[in-house]
Amino acid sequence: MSEPSPTPSFRERAAAVMMALQDEICGGLIALERDAGGDGAVREDAWERPGGGGGRSRVFADGVVLEKAGVNVSVVHGELSEAFARQLPGDGRQFFATGTSLVLHPQNPHAPTVHANFRYLEHGERRWFGGGADLTPSYLYDDDSAHFHATWQAFCAAHPDLDDWPRWRDECDRYFYLPHRGERRGVGGIFFDDLTVDGDPAKAERLLAAVQAAGAAFLAAYLPIVTRRKDTAFTADERAWQELRRGRYVEFNLVYDRGTVFGLKTDGRVESILMSMPPRARWAYMAEPPEGTPEARLLAALREPPPAAAAGDRGGR
Amino acid sequence: MSEPSPTPSFRERAAAVMMALQDEICGGLIALERDAGGDGAVREDAWERPGGGGGRSRVFADGVVLEKAGVNVSVVHGELSEAFARQLPGDGRQFFATGTSLVLHPQNPHAPTVHANFRYLEHGERRWFGGGADLTPSYLYDDDSAHFHATWQAFCAAHPDLDDWPRWRDECDRYFYLPHRGERRGVGGIFFDDLTVDGDPAKAERLLAAVQAAGAAFLAAYLPIVTRRKDTAFTADERAWQELRRGRYVEFNLVYDRGTVFGLKTDGRVESILMSMPPRARWAYMAEPPEGTPEARLLAALREPPPAAAAGDRGGR
Repeated sequence: MSEPSPTPSFRERAAAVMMALQDEICGGLIALERDAGGDGAVREDAWERPGGGGGRSRVFADGVVLEKAGVNVSVVHGELSEAFARQLPGDGRQFFATGTSLVLHPQNPHAPTVHANFRYLEHGERRWFGGGADLTPSYLYDDDSAHFHATWQAFCAAHPDLDDWPRWRDECDRYFYLPHRGERRGVGGIFFDDLTVDGDPAKAERLLAAVQAAGAAFLAAYLPIVTRRKDTAFTADERAWQELRRGRYVEFNLVYDRGTVFGLKTDGRVESILMSMPPRARWAYMAEPPEGTPEARLLAALREPPPAAAAGDRGGR
Repeated sequence: MSEPSPTPSFRERAAAVMMALQDEICGGLIALERDAGGDGAVREDAWERPGGGGGRSRVFADGVVLEKAGVNVSVVHGELSEAFARQLPGDGRQFFATGTSLVLHPQNPHAPTVHANFRYLEHGERRWFGGGADLTPSYLYDDDSAHFHATWQAFCAAHPDLDDWPRWRDECDRYFYLPHRGERRGVGGIFFDDLTVDGDPAKAERLLAAVQAAGAAFLAAYLPIVTRRKDTAFTADERAWQELRRGRYVEFNLVYDRGTVFGLKTDGRVESILMSMPPRARWAYMAEPPEGTPEARLLAALREPPPAAAAGDRGGR
C-alpha cells in the first residue's frame, strides 16, 4: 500500500469504492431475502493474503430466494509470480488490485444466475479498470434478457468511457462461451477489460465514478428479474434441468474463466474464488432435451455462435 | 491406419486388446448390476473422430449399484495440432492412440468412485504405453484401500516392466492431487506414464500383455469393494458429503487432468470425455466437517502431502 497521507490516494479511494459496492449490493440482497420472509443472514469472513492485502467475503446460503450467493471484495498487492506477471499488461512484478465480484445462484429454476465483477489494477506503471455483468438463465424469458441488457445499455450510455454498449455486449458474448460445448454460458450482459487510464487522471476519476454507480445498476438490472421469477411454480424435472445447466457453469468457471484459473493456480483464497460454484450441479450423458420444449428453446439460443471478435480482442486479463 | 495385412499390425492388436478390455470390464459391471437385481442395461454409442478413427462409449445410468458409469474405448489417428504435438514426447504431428478409460460413480456414499485408464500411443517414431487406476472414497475404509493397493501391487509384480510398484503408487499420489485444496483426490492406486517401447518389440509385447491382464486386475481390485459397500445404510447427510466430495472430483478433472483438459481444448468427443463427471456434485462455502467425524478422518488422510517427486517426474503426456 502507499504511505498513509491526509488525502487518500487513488488506490485507497478505489478500494473504498469496491467496499461500498459490496455494502450496497449486499444491502439490496438482504432486503430481497427479508421481503420474501427470510432472515437475510449473511456470513462475513475477513481474510488476509499472505503476500499482501486481503479481503472480505460475504455469503448467503440456503436463503429463501438465494440458494447460494457470494459477494467478495479484495484489496491485494505485492509481487506477482514471473509467469503470471508475463500474462498481465504492464511491466515488472509489483501489482495492486482491488475489486468486487459476485455470483448469485437463486433457488428457483426460473430465476437466473447472475455474475458481476468490477476491478481496478496496477501493474508496474500501468493502471486499468475492468468489469462486467452477465445473466445465466436455465429457462429463457425474453423480457428478463431485454430488461438486463437495457439496464446495462443505459449504464454504458451514462459513462463516457463506456459509451459503446454494442462493443461490451459483444465482448461479453465472446468471453462467456464454452467452445467444447458450442454454447454461450448465458444470455450475456456487458464485459469490458483493460480500460487503461495511464497518464489520464480524469479518465481514472470517471471510471471510478462508473464503478461507484455500478451497484445501483446491478440492483436495477437483477432485482426486478429475480423478484418476478422467485415464486414461479416448478417441477422436479425443472430443478434437474437447472442442475444440469449449473454443470455448464462449473465447466466454464473451472476450464475457461481467467480469474478462477489464475486464482486457483496462484495464491488466491480458495473458498472465496470458488464462492462462484453452484450449490449443486449435475451431469448426464447425452442429455439433449426434446425439440419444442422450453429447455430446447434455451439451448437453441445459447448455441447461436457468438459475434466475431474484433482484431486483437480477448487478450489482456 | 497401416495397410491391411494378413498378419494384424501391432496397432491393430493394441486396439483389439483395448476393445476386449472394455468388453471384459463391462461384462463384470453388468453382472454386478444383475446380481443386485438391476437389469444391467448399457447404452452404447459408436462414434467417429472427424480427423481419423473413432471409438465406442458404454454408459450405465441410474443403475442399482452404479449411479453413473462410463467405459470408453478409442482408436484414433491423424495429425496433432502444432501446440499439442509440442507437449507430447515424439516428433512431427502424425499420431496414433488407442486406449480404454473408465470412471464408475456408485450410488452408495460408502462405495468409492473408481477410475482406470490404459493407453498405447505413437507419435512420430516414438511408441509408448501408459495407464493406471485409482480409488476415490467419500468414506475411508482401510480394508478397501489395502485390498485395492494389494491387487495392483500383485499386478505390477506379475509384469516385468511394471515391477516397481512403490514407484507407480507414488506417481499416482502425486498425479491425483489438488494443489489449490491441498488434498489428494483419493487414496491412490497406480499411475504409469510414458513407458517407452522404442526399438524394443519384446517390451511392447510384454506391455500389451500387461494391458490385456489389466481387465481381470481391475475387476479383482474393485468388485469386492463395491460389493461389500453397496448396501450399507446411509443418511441424507452422508449423501450430501458424497456430493461435496464429487465436487472435488470435478475440480480435479476440469482443472488438472491432462486427458480431460487436452480433450476439451482439442477435438475430442465431449460427451465421451465428460463421462467422467459425477452424476451430481455440490459446493458449499467453508464446509469443514467437525473433528472426530468419519468425514474429518477422510479429509485428514487426503491432506497427507503426496510423496516428493523424483527428478524429472510429472512430465510426459
